[in-house]
Amino acid sequence: MTRQARLRLEPQTGCALRLDRGHTLRVRSPTGEQVADVVAFAAAPAADAGGGGDPDEWLSSGRTFDYGTSIYVGTGSILYSNRSTPMLTVTADTAGRHDFLLTPCSEEMFERLYGVAGHPSCLGNLAAHLAPFGIPAGRIPTTLNLFMVVTPDPATGRITIGVPSSRPGDHVDLRAEADLIVGVAACSAELTNNGTLKPIEVEVHDPVHYDGGASP
Amino acid sequence: MTRQARLRLEPQTGCALRLDRGHTLRVRSPTGEQVADVVAFAAAPAADAGGGGDPDEWLSSGRTFDYGTSIYVGTGSILYSNRSTPMLTVTADTAGRHDFLLTPCSEEMFERLYGVAGHPSCLGNLAAHLAPFGIPAGRIPTTLNLFMVVTPDPATGRITIGVPSSRPGDHVDLRAEADLIVGVAACSAELTNNGTLKPIEVEVHDPVHYDGGASP
Repeated sequence: MTRQARLRLEPQTGCALRLDRGHTLRVRSPTGEQVADVVAFAAAPAADAGGGGDPDEWLSSGRTFDYGTSIYVGTGSILYSNRSTPMLTVTADTAGRHDFLLTPCSEEMFERLYGVAGHPSCLGNLAAHLAPFGIPAGRIPTTLNLFMVVTPDPATGRITIGVPSSRPGDHVDLRAEADLIVGVAACSAELTNNGTLKPIEVEVHDPVHYDGGASP
Repeated sequence: MTRQARLRLEPQTGCALRLDRGHTLRVRSPTGEQVADVVAFAAAPAADAGGGGDPDEWLSSGRTFDYGTSIYVGTGSILYSNRSTPMLTVTADTAGRHDFLLTPCSEEMFERLYGVAGHPSCLGNLAAHLAPFGIPAGRIPTTLNLFMVVTPDPATGRITIGVPSSRPGDHVDLRAEADLIVGVAACSAELTNNGTLKPIEVEVHDPVHYDGGASP
């Protein structure tokens, strides 16, 4: 597996890229204790290398839970679309815990929970980078929140959010099982990332076309 | 609260209707041990009483989990859209346990898990009834699966599916906090409903416009 591209996502930024079937996306936390939100859409059926995504086929937490019989994912997990198509396989995971329950943080969330207006957010960063691929913000589903630790109490349903699972250098490898448009964001929420916002590294192994880099 | 409409959903059927802000949808299990899948979309901004839904604003399990700090919903829970808009409030719940983790059963699910082709499904029934409101099948998110009991193990993430929580006559009341297009299906999966497929009753309290009845 040859590394073909590396993007460094500065804190509170995102990216989107085309990931062809068989190629692997590595999401790495160089510092540890930092969450990365990941989402995927099917590449549009007739798309060429510069083509867009299909907003009607998206990474589905609910299908993945159902087929995997688990709310957690790790090495060996297959991540499914809403149409039951395998999109990604987790081929490596050095951290061990990730969240697939919660939506990406959004401007509205920071306003509602903390009374802060105009806060950078994963939803905003993902939407900005997915827009050139034809994916509107309103189509972004529950993201796979790598390194985020969310634990439900089975008796009450209550969830607790812990310190991110990643130590310095931890990574997750996601192999594309279909041609995809993938978005990744270095999570913008202070409380979710143990108080400080850190970068995320994104590598693509094998040839790939991407949108030119991380957001400023 | 006056009952304005009642639909009986025969086993393995669905319906969709417009639910105006302030009006209440009651979903009732006359027999018990039967799951009902519920989904909602914002009514399109300029819609009149016969208008459609906005496929970009939909009931979001992830937002609801985040704001409610729980994966379970019950009396008092507010159900949010992907845009952080309150869509529905649970104003009554005589059963006590519901699922918001899993996607509606689909033809592809029956094929993948059981090798059965052409099985009736909640996704199919919801899609058929939401289509006249301008909502394509590919926009249907994780549904609120009333009376379905799905319990995760916090250590492993493993989920178990139990017998539905409903006893004969149990119901859930959902008050609309915005103008909505709502879909309901009497779940089509034998194993999820303790082996037999049963009807679901849908009532609307206060004036409402709906699409004419349950599917055949």
